[in-house]
Amino acid sequence: MYIICTYDVAEKRCVKVMKVLRKYMFHVQNSVFEGELTPSKFNELKVKLDKIINPDDAILFYFVYENKKIKKDYLGKAPKSSNIII
Amino acid sequence: MYIICTYDVAEKRCVKVMKVLRKYMFHVQNSVFEGELTPSKFNELKVKLDKIINPDDAILFYFVYENKKIKKDYLGKAPKSSNIII
Repeated sequence: MYIICTYDVAEKRCVKVMKVLRKYMFHVQNSVFEGELTPSKFNELKVKLDKIINPDDAILFYFVYENKKIKKDYLGKAPKSSNIII
Repeated sequence: MYIICTYDVAEKRCVKVMKVLRKYMFHVQNSVFEGELTPSKFNELKVKLDKIINPDDAILFYFVYENKKIKKDYLGKAPKSSNIII
């Protein structure tokens, strides 16, 4: 399944969250990652992130089962190429 | 079509970008908006945003034609309820 992850995390935990996300997904914008993950890899990622963040932090996942169903567009600077979707 | 918008914009333009996005979409996380828009409303939104941002800013749109195809999950603080998807 294709996953878009956005996060709003306290500065002191940001680097740790990014390091974990980088092992699973592609960094496309400041606090946005994308990537294709199996359900088990997605759960593994969530367990790791849950250990890092605290209740005030917010991590949001959008997931699409058929990545052909999601399109991407942008204004301004082009997103770091993940060109996996389009 | 259902749209997720994330942005990485210079501080001095953030408020303007947020004001425009609020007229079209729902603010769910720090720099993340969601909403159902017709193609013509989406183009109208892009024209307005394009007038505000400069080439170093980055606005990313993911769009799904069938909003039933996209699911949402979160860790930490619950996203401001948009409950449009789920």
